[in-house]
Amino acid sequence: MKKIMLTGDRPTGRLHVGHYVGSLRRRVELQNTGDFDDIFIMIADAQALTDNADNPEKVRQNIIEVALDYLACGLDPEKSTLLIQSQIPELCELSFYYMNLVTVSRLQRNPTVKSEIQMRNFEASIPVGFFTYPISQAADITAFKATVVPVGEDQMPMLEQTKEIVHKFNSVYGETLVEPKILLPDNEACMRLPGIDGKAKMSKSLNNCIYLSEEPEDIKKKVFSMFTDPTHIRVEDPGKLEGNTVFTYLDAFCRPEYFPEFLPEYANLDELKDHYKRGGLGDMKVKRFLNNVLQAELEPIRNRRKEFQKDIPAVYEILKKGSEKAEKVAAQTLSEVKAAMKINYFDDEELIRVQSEMFTEKN
Amino acid sequence: MKKIMLTGDRPTGRLHVGHYVGSLRRRVELQNTGDFDDIFIMIADAQALTDNADNPEKVRQNIIEVALDYLACGLDPEKSTLLIQSQIPELCELSFYYMNLVTVSRLQRNPTVKSEIQMRNFEASIPVGFFTYPISQAADITAFKATVVPVGEDQMPMLEQTKEIVHKFNSVYGETLVEPKILLPDNEACMRLPGIDGKAKMSKSLNNCIYLSEEPEDIKKKVFSMFTDPTHIRVEDPGKLEGNTVFTYLDAFCRPEYFPEFLPEYANLDELKDHYKRGGLGDMKVKRFLNNVLQAELEPIRNRRKEFQKDIPAVYEILKKGSEKAEKVAAQTLSEVKAAMKINYFDDEELIRVQSEMFTEKN
Repeated sequence: MKKIMLTGDRPTGRLHVGHYVGSLRRRVELQNTGDFDDIFIMIADAQALTDNADNPEKVRQNIIEVALDYLACGLDPEKSTLLIQSQIPELCELSFYYMNLVTVSRLQRNPTVKSEIQMRNFEASIPVGFFTYPISQAADITAFKATVVPVGEDQMPMLEQTKEIVHKFNSVYGETLVEPKILLPDNEACMRLPGIDGKAKMSKSLNNCIYLSEEPEDIKKKVFSMFTDPTHIRVEDPGKLEGNTVFTYLDAFCRPEYFPEFLPEYANLDELKDHYKRGGLGDMKVKRFLNNVLQAELEPIRNRRKEFQKDIPAVYEILKKGSEKAEKVAAQTLSEVKAAMKINYFDDEELIRVQSEMFTEKN
Repeated sequence: MKKIMLTGDRPTGRLHVGHYVGSLRRRVELQNTGDFDDIFIMIADAQALTDNADNPEKVRQNIIEVALDYLACGLDPEKSTLLIQSQIPELCELSFYYMNLVTVSRLQRNPTVKSEIQMRNFEASIPVGFFTYPISQAADITAFKATVVPVGEDQMPMLEQTKEIVHKFNSVYGETLVEPKILLPDNEACMRLPGIDGKAKMSKSLNNCIYLSEEPEDIKKKVFSMFTDPTHIRVEDPGKLEGNTVFTYLDAFCRPEYFPEFLPEYANLDELKDHYKRGGLGDMKVKRFLNNVLQAELEPIRNRRKEFQKDIPAVYEILKKGSEKAEKVAAQTLSEVKAAMKINYFDDEELIRVQSEMFTEKN
């Protein structure tokens, strides 16, 4: 069987370092293994509209930001198909038919939907499109016959929903859809990188994100304002690592080669951590190191982004070509789905022949 | 403004006399007035699948039955566009975006959905596609810019839902969609013709329908087994008209010219009713009259149906041509919808130009 990966992001803002360590970095690594027959990276504008219907401009303006972040991180249109969800009408049609295979109460039990509804304070006014987005996600995944879907742990219930739809469809209409496997992040620190204030969620409104396109001075300011261990007051005090954002970021970003380069008095991150826990290591020194690490990590990304920013029409052209390629794949799946459901009447010579005979006998 | 009519039926069985007096007969009359710029008659297979997903064969086999009934009743492909819903993919896309404009609780309050859920004993296992079908119906109506939708009174909440979506869409994205008007049946007896057993609902499983394609002997048998007034035992007893199915059918079907032809001793239906109420008129005599009326009404329909049955591929060809024409109209609406939502990025030169300038300044 072919190995096909599908993943993507909602275009509601520029991508930040949480996106990078949580998914983007690995996506690029996976892309560069050459192990995949096809990789689809989706800018999920249609999904973003499910809870931004009143503000489509936000979604519209951020498509280019996400595309630039993708290219800046090393997603390569020669190796990965970058596409815009709304440009693939087949996804709506697949969703439409999958909606018959899922019950309302099953959607209500979806833990991801439940917690996202809470997060958004929707309460009684959940848009139907938002409520049903696990079904739309199943359409995205199955349209491209994805076998591998790299997502965060919080998205596992979504993948379960997709698998249920695949099973149900295949059992009612015959083997047609491919069941995907989830690929979880391998580094725990990366699974949910906190904001610089230590809060679990990075968000534009909390102003606690470091963006991939952030300028050096801003990165530095943000690193130096980071939440650490509030009980670690004097340098000689022992420090805690749990909930210490600076160390969480080091867990996510530090590479062995950064020690000889920026902090040669320590052999590795474990030594640094031990010293911090013992006492005698000040927050400023660790922050200076993290700043160097982040600057080293983000500089090439920022520079590549600036290159791509010089030719915006070319970026749209990449998205257009990717969307066209993706649409062909989705159209093929949809035609298989319709054939399995036998709703391709006009192509169905057997149906027309048998009914002709039946009515001839009746007349 | 153009006058455009949209209406249709779910292909879950042959159509019966309830469909005829409730909507089909009027549809044909409206068609023949020549008042409409366009008429779309939809065989709603996709909607039928929302609660028949496990049995697509039932829907599939009945498309031709409904099409034959349409043609038999006098719907004329030269004047009305006959189409199959599932062959218009644009409808799914419109539904998809409209779903963001309706809340889950709004759907839960829809009285038509509520009562249909009860009728189907869905309880906790309502398919999402069924739950959301008022939104899909809004897509059907607006895709063709229908100004007039002739439906039964029970469907009024559905039209309200469509109007709400039209308002919401136009206020968020700018004036795009056309608000439809409901056209109710003008004859009360026709609004919900009971089954021959007097039960409010005609259904195949209750075996209480008279089909449009029914043979003369079967019509007769069914008329003679009809529910009347159970207290009207002897001929001389006074009879009740309320709940008396034979009279309800006469209200729906009788024309003045049938009296001289079949029952010349009465001038009109009012005289017949008066005699029945007074006493002295037997059920059999009324049933014989109704049988004559129904035979006269259904004979030309049945004969025309037999003509069309002789060439089933030609009927599919009519549906194919109609669906192609309808798709063009829906595609035009969809492109207006996407332009209003501004999600037609690749055609949006302004977007690309403004963003190019913005990033040039940033770099």
